[in-house]
Amino acid sequence: MTTIRESVEVVCRAAKEAASQIAKADASRKNAALSGMAKGLRERANWLKEENRKDMDAGKAKGLPPAMLDRLLLTDARILQMADGIAEVIALPDPVGEVLRMGRRPNGLWVGRMRIPLGVIGIIYESRPNVTADAAALCVKSGNAVILRGGSEAIHSNSAIARILREALSVTGLPADAVSIIDRTDREAIDVMLAAEEQIDLIIPRGGEGLIRSVAEKSRIPVIKHYKGVCHVYVDEGADIRQAIQICVNAKVQRPGVCNAMETLLVHGIAAPEFLPPAAAELMKNGVELRGCPDTLRLVPSAMPASEEDWGTEYLDLVLAVRVVGSMDEAIGHIRRHGSLHTEAILTRDHARAMRFVREVDSSLVLVNASTRFNDGFQLGLGAEIGISTTKIHAFGPMGLTELTTTKFIAFGDGQVRE
Amino acid sequence: MTTIRESVEVVCRAAKEAASQIAKADASRKNAALSGMAKGLRERANWLKEENRKDMDAGKAKGLPPAMLDRLLLTDARILQMADGIAEVIALPDPVGEVLRMGRRPNGLWVGRMRIPLGVIGIIYESRPNVTADAAALCVKSGNAVILRGGSEAIHSNSAIARILREALSVTGLPADAVSIIDRTDREAIDVMLAAEEQIDLIIPRGGEGLIRSVAEKSRIPVIKHYKGVCHVYVDEGADIRQAIQICVNAKVQRPGVCNAMETLLVHGIAAPEFLPPAAAELMKNGVELRGCPDTLRLVPSAMPASEEDWGTEYLDLVLAVRVVGSMDEAIGHIRRHGSLHTEAILTRDHARAMRFVREVDSSLVLVNASTRFNDGFQLGLGAEIGISTTKIHAFGPMGLTELTTTKFIAFGDGQVRE
Repeated sequence: MTTIRESVEVVCRAAKEAASQIAKADASRKNAALSGMAKGLRERANWLKEENRKDMDAGKAKGLPPAMLDRLLLTDARILQMADGIAEVIALPDPVGEVLRMGRRPNGLWVGRMRIPLGVIGIIYESRPNVTADAAALCVKSGNAVILRGGSEAIHSNSAIARILREALSVTGLPADAVSIIDRTDREAIDVMLAAEEQIDLIIPRGGEGLIRSVAEKSRIPVIKHYKGVCHVYVDEGADIRQAIQICVNAKVQRPGVCNAMETLLVHGIAAPEFLPPAAAELMKNGVELRGCPDTLRLVPSAMPASEEDWGTEYLDLVLAVRVVGSMDEAIGHIRRHGSLHTEAILTRDHARAMRFVREVDSSLVLVNASTRFNDGFQLGLGAEIGISTTKIHAFGPMGLTELTTTKFIAFGDGQVRE
Repeated sequence: MTTIRESVEVVCRAAKEAASQIAKADASRKNAALSGMAKGLRERANWLKEENRKDMDAGKAKGLPPAMLDRLLLTDARILQMADGIAEVIALPDPVGEVLRMGRRPNGLWVGRMRIPLGVIGIIYESRPNVTADAAALCVKSGNAVILRGGSEAIHSNSAIARILREALSVTGLPADAVSIIDRTDREAIDVMLAAEEQIDLIIPRGGEGLIRSVAEKSRIPVIKHYKGVCHVYVDEGADIRQAIQICVNAKVQRPGVCNAMETLLVHGIAAPEFLPPAAAELMKNGVELRGCPDTLRLVPSAMPASEEDWGTEYLDLVLAVRVVGSMDEAIGHIRRHGSLHTEAILTRDHARAMRFVREVDSSLVLVNASTRFNDGFQLGLGAEIGISTTKIHAFGPMGLTELTTTKFIAFGDGQVRE
């Protein structure tokens, strides 16, 4: 009987072995494999739904909440969406092998940097089975091997998807272990993974803050993560009021449950009397509950009073904290204290203040006169993303294919030695 | 009485506070501060030597080995070298604020990336006091605050240098705490530092493998490091023999005690009979002890036999392991098994094999027909370096000013909302 430790270690070693092969693969071969993956998912949708039903039945028996069961469910539409997602990755340029900043040194040595894969990437995620296909496609396209460890409640769905992906790799002549899955559902499997620093180069956890904190604390491998998105919009003195209302409604209402939705609205005291009453009316018409500072309550009597805990809260819901500030510096100070380095926007007509906000606010995306909802790989032009980083090491903001690579130095000489 | 924990935490919080100010400073002000630092070191050389004498006396009393005492010693020449090093950093361009890949999205939103400092960088190092000035200058120029924790045996020297650097910051109107020093010599001070993930963004350990491993194991903050440099030179079939001998002698002999010196020589079987006897003669004339595989011993009877442990050993001395291989694939396989991802070179006339070696060898610098000794920030055109990374996350290879920064996304709109 294999122990959990042994079985996870076998997977890690196999992935590392596969990584050196997939790293060398040309784009055409990687695209052929991705194409086979998309085709396999489409053709075997019925089997995927059968396997998914096992997870759904177990989940219902276990009494999982409806929202979680919904995330777990695979429908024909969702399977097609996974396949289409892979097709989009095929269309993205292969980052591997790009040579950057090549130039000639005074001694005649040509020095540049070549983009290379990171190696083996471990993805630890919760209930959505589509992450299995999305993450694997990005890792394969960027020349990395991936080790997938999804939630135990999705084990049948994830294993079925992974099987289709692995077969497509084999058919194309690439190692199946470039997409590896850990199908031991015990927590210990994660611990073994997080200690496999000889095999895994990077860990990306995706899920709730609890999962991410526990991964970050235990891991001996670098972790790229974001805990939460407490996004602020600052409406400056003299902002275009109509435009500001449209942006705020979009940032809060268009999809309130995601990390790039606005959670706190900061309004300059001079703009507040003209802006806040119509903005509040429009937000409330869209079902938003407002929690305001005393100045806000004077202008919008129907708002609830905000408590100290409202500043910095990620509601992920139709709730918005509102504060009137005396200056842009006060707004920036509030963001520094309560923000999460995710996404911040200034709405202003003043060029100097726009530029100072962009320079001084330290978030992964800083916008002028646009909705916070644009912090997304597709919207920013990167293509599909594997996650958003709010830590500054290696990647800051949405991580696309390029962020799954690094560069090595290369040098071409004709006999150069060091004096 | 302040505990160690409290006093280190006070330093960390002050550095974080200073980081937000130094991040905003213009290059002219940072350069003025650096200029004051260089001037201060030059003008107060006598005081620095007095403070250094306290460390030297304590070190002698403690029986430190002569090599360590030599690393500890500050002379007029070494103090001038520190000051000159700072002057070189002044001459480098400021990476902060650079905007990259700015372009217009289909909806009219302008999206780009802006280079920003990392925040607070912790440097943990051993006996060389010059690291205090070198590391601080690079961190200040790149807009970061730095927390320095040098070896206990250099405490007086490091504190004196840091005092001069801090005064120069204050005089320029920058926060002195942008260069912070932990002057508690207890080991516990390092532990507290490595747990200060709310304040410190990156840890760079510099010193022996023991120090680095212990930092990497304990740290909850990302660590960029290299354990060792086991650099290989592969002499291909048909290489230019004279040139290959010159490069090998340079790579081994020019400065054998550093991480980018060659430690293992791999020779294609067809090149070996013509190359190895004269190369061995030249290396031995330079005092190099050879440890060879059986094939090497047949061609160079005066070499010592290599044992299995010689492959992958970092001698840092005039000792060289030599192996004859049957093919380039065998050489690449040897490097994969025994290398340290630091620096590898191929010496060849064959273009296709040169390009394949560059593509398939996964080290931080891969060279064709040049000495491994070029893996150095100055030699590769980055300017002064804060260290060399052999892990692929964030930076791979020498780390200059740019590697002490990251980028955030910036977006300029005129009312864009998400559909």
